[in-house]
Amino acid sequence: MKNCEILVIGAGAVGVFFHSRLAKANENAKVSVIARSDYDHVKAYGYNICSPDEDIHFMPSAVFRDVSDYDRKADFVIVCTKVLPGIDIPELIRPAVSEDTSIVLIQNGIDIESGVAAAFPDNELISGIAYVGVARSQAGRIEHTDGGRLKLGVYPQGRSGKLEALAEMYRKSDIPTEIFDDIIRVRWEKLVWNTSYNPVSVLTRSNTAQIMNDPDCETLIRGIMEEICLIAEAAGWKQRDGIVDEMLAYTRQFRPYKPSMLVDYEQGRKMEIEAIIGNPLRTAQHYGIDVPHIQSVYAIIKLLSHSSTKI
Amino acid sequence: MKNCEILVIGAGAVGVFFHSRLAKANENAKVSVIARSDYDHVKAYGYNICSPDEDIHFMPSAVFRDVSDYDRKADFVIVCTKVLPGIDIPELIRPAVSEDTSIVLIQNGIDIESGVAAAFPDNELISGIAYVGVARSQAGRIEHTDGGRLKLGVYPQGRSGKLEALAEMYRKSDIPTEIFDDIIRVRWEKLVWNTSYNPVSVLTRSNTAQIMNDPDCETLIRGIMEEICLIAEAAGWKQRDGIVDEMLAYTRQFRPYKPSMLVDYEQGRKMEIEAIIGNPLRTAQHYGIDVPHIQSVYAIIKLLSHSSTKI
Repeated sequence: MKNCEILVIGAGAVGVFFHSRLAKANENAKVSVIARSDYDHVKAYGYNICSPDEDIHFMPSAVFRDVSDYDRKADFVIVCTKVLPGIDIPELIRPAVSEDTSIVLIQNGIDIESGVAAAFPDNELISGIAYVGVARSQAGRIEHTDGGRLKLGVYPQGRSGKLEALAEMYRKSDIPTEIFDDIIRVRWEKLVWNTSYNPVSVLTRSNTAQIMNDPDCETLIRGIMEEICLIAEAAGWKQRDGIVDEMLAYTRQFRPYKPSMLVDYEQGRKMEIEAIIGNPLRTAQHYGIDVPHIQSVYAIIKLLSHSSTKI
Repeated sequence: MKNCEILVIGAGAVGVFFHSRLAKANENAKVSVIARSDYDHVKAYGYNICSPDEDIHFMPSAVFRDVSDYDRKADFVIVCTKVLPGIDIPELIRPAVSEDTSIVLIQNGIDIESGVAAAFPDNELISGIAYVGVARSQAGRIEHTDGGRLKLGVYPQGRSGKLEALAEMYRKSDIPTEIFDDIIRVRWEKLVWNTSYNPVSVLTRSNTAQIMNDPDCETLIRGIMEEICLIAEAAGWKQRDGIVDEMLAYTRQFRPYKPSMLVDYEQGRKMEIEAIIGNPLRTAQHYGIDVPHIQSVYAIIKLLSHSSTKI
């Protein structure tokens, strides 16, 4: 079987978690990474990924400091960066994209694909959503606490043989991977949870259990979820009936959990406010839908995120 | 002219500011105060009130550590405490209220009178709203930055000779004082500003100029203001047309200003969340009015205010 060249861009916790496993389980997969802040460490020692039941060491096929250093022909360029206003993904990945490269975006939020699709109209674009609890604790070291599933689909819709082959590689690595013909609907489904719990946890400095113990906050969470469902439906991606009650019940059984946006806020890192809250709000405005809970939360968290240097 | 015995309860910045001036300008007014944390200092040295154009020294007619120590017959018991869930105003003032005592509440928020009215059905109850920028900077010392007006009315409505006499004493002290037959309407008017700027400034850590520079925050402020107008109208206190645009324009010309709730939050003091946000929300629920902006802001600030010891 011929080699499969994979380049992971944004080799943070999510990118390293999935592709270290993929590389271990698929001998023909040659996984290279772009490492910036921890380049020297990773080049010398690779990564250690510490899970509850096992520790994995992973030495990439090649480590590059910059995408322009990449000297291979990528079958897959897999982008696992956060979605932040300052990061121009098409410009970032361009040096590594050749004629037959499939571009894979494993990222949060909505409306994250269109810029890449427009910049590379002739390349296959795969949209992916990760469900995993991981964090980088130091150079070259990733802590994995729970989960580790993927949902993938061709953007804007459909499936392909190459996507099937990629999914098969993940599955061979014990990563449950589902393919969807309507991956955008799945993105909206994830937003039902993300657009509600993420900002509310930041604004209240509270974990999921503390939020669910407060009836007024539960009302707010429900309000945001119902608004996301309204926007999704207007955009053509109606969610299944009962999804809001289902997600509330699901979250109520969690152990107390800190949403990733709260972790980012506490550690002084940038939050994915536009991908997760601003983009659905703009979609609502496009369709003329009134979403006052989302509007309130967006206005507050956006100004808060700029306020560290203020007053 | 016979003496007028006045007891100020909650001798913080607001109470001391107005009644030091009143005592100076009205020889027959005997102003006593309840001083708790700074009792020894005030008993020995009185208060210094520092305004931009003058400093006033004020020695109360008498200083008491506790209301139960009060040994006179009060013509007016004037309550200037913050409105916080832990403070039972009727129990607090009971020792000082006799047959002919008028009770005056100079406090923020809505629905703050009913408990006192029920506890003292035979006493006149006067409801008052202060417009002043003052803060206590240390024991016995008050900093006055701007304003200093009062709006007063008999609760639930009307006016009285005794109220006229009190207002006249304030006016003699150069405190512009207006009497309203419908003071509750004026309370709702003040809420249009308070329920919007106060919590939004806390949640965004921003002053009024920073809020007004962000179009999404201005939209949120407007949304809250319009919801307060809807609730006020349902409760029988319709606000004048154009009040929302008027208040936005008025605030836009301010020098950058930190609302008092933000100052309380930054200094670790309790915020008047229920009087200013919770009570109007409950009024909305009573009348079946949907107020999603207020609901969002209330849920967030209430949980945030409990979160210092959390996670």
